[in-house]
Amino acid sequence: MPHIALDENLPGISALFAYRPETAAPLKQLAEVLLRGPSSLSVGERELISAVVSRGNDCTFCSRSHAAIAAEALEGGMPVVEAAWADVDGAPVSAKVKALLHVALAVREGGKSVGEDLIAVARAEGATDVEIHDTVLIAAAFCMFNRYVDGLATIAPDDQEAYQGMGARLLQEGYTRL
Amino acid sequence: MPHIALDENLPGISALFAYRPETAAPLKQLAEVLLRGPSSLSVGERELISAVVSRGNDCTFCSRSHAAIAAEALEGGMPVVEAAWADVDGAPVSAKVKALLHVALAVREGGKSVGEDLIAVARAEGATDVEIHDTVLIAAAFCMFNRYVDGLATIAPDDQEAYQGMGARLLQEGYTRL
Repeated sequence: MPHIALDENLPGISALFAYRPETAAPLKQLAEVLLRGPSSLSVGERELISAVVSRGNDCTFCSRSHAAIAAEALEGGMPVVEAAWADVDGAPVSAKVKALLHVALAVREGGKSVGEDLIAVARAEGATDVEIHDTVLIAAAFCMFNRYVDGLATIAPDDQEAYQGMGARLLQEGYTRL
Repeated sequence: MPHIALDENLPGISALFAYRPETAAPLKQLAEVLLRGPSSLSVGERELISAVVSRGNDCTFCSRSHAAIAAEALEGGMPVVEAAWADVDGAPVSAKVKALLHVALAVREGGKSVGEDLIAVARAEGATDVEIHDTVLIAAAFCMFNRYVDGLATIAPDDQEAYQGMGARLLQEGYTRL
């Protein structure tokens, strides 16, 4: 049960967006710019970073919903996400995306865990400064979203269909219409 | 040295805001709503939450700059911040603010660390749903800001005067003009 009085019909962060529209506006805008805005990283790659960080933070709602969006956007579908969840290096993604996922997982631990070595590997695999910047900020942002969603004990649906529906809708419509 | 090519004359998050204005806009807006917007928590209390979470995350730039703002806004000045850094329960703040600081520190650990017990104590001390919501989101947001600032290895000035200057300016002008 949520820690505060939220609309029980709304799952996860949707209930928080409805509860406090003043903070919802910049949060949705941040997600839109980072995950849907112009970028040399594909939507699927960025959603995969979100899903991997959220899983690392053990946030059921965020990891399952962003996994569903990534699965919808990536050619290999859900098996790619599941492989990345199990072991980044074994996932069927480019060497650059693997290196960026390692940067993201270091951010999840803490900002100071991002060593020069991880950045050097990403750069050697072709990552640009903006890609490194965006990866760090996506990972950091999900360290916020995950804590927001679980820190207020919002509801995470059990059934996979709920996430698939959300995933398909969020991929098509983006975050600002949420 | 920062991990990406940032303006060397700008400290901490200012360099990141200048580097990527597209993400800076919603980030500044979020800080403005949470820390300066209408609230039954004072600006000093909200900046204290930010400073305590940032210190817990070992982020030099964020902890020192938000400590300077809190010190400027709180009647007791810097000794209040230093007491809260050392031991929340020993700080000269209200029982409600102590309870909210404990909620914030739990959020810092992880969303699932926020137990019913911590919420019950905050509520018993008079915290409203919106205050609990905002405390959780401020703490979560600083788990993002701290990782963003340190994950890209931005520069944290050494001299206290730099932070005092920033603190006074940020208290007066807010975050959107940054």
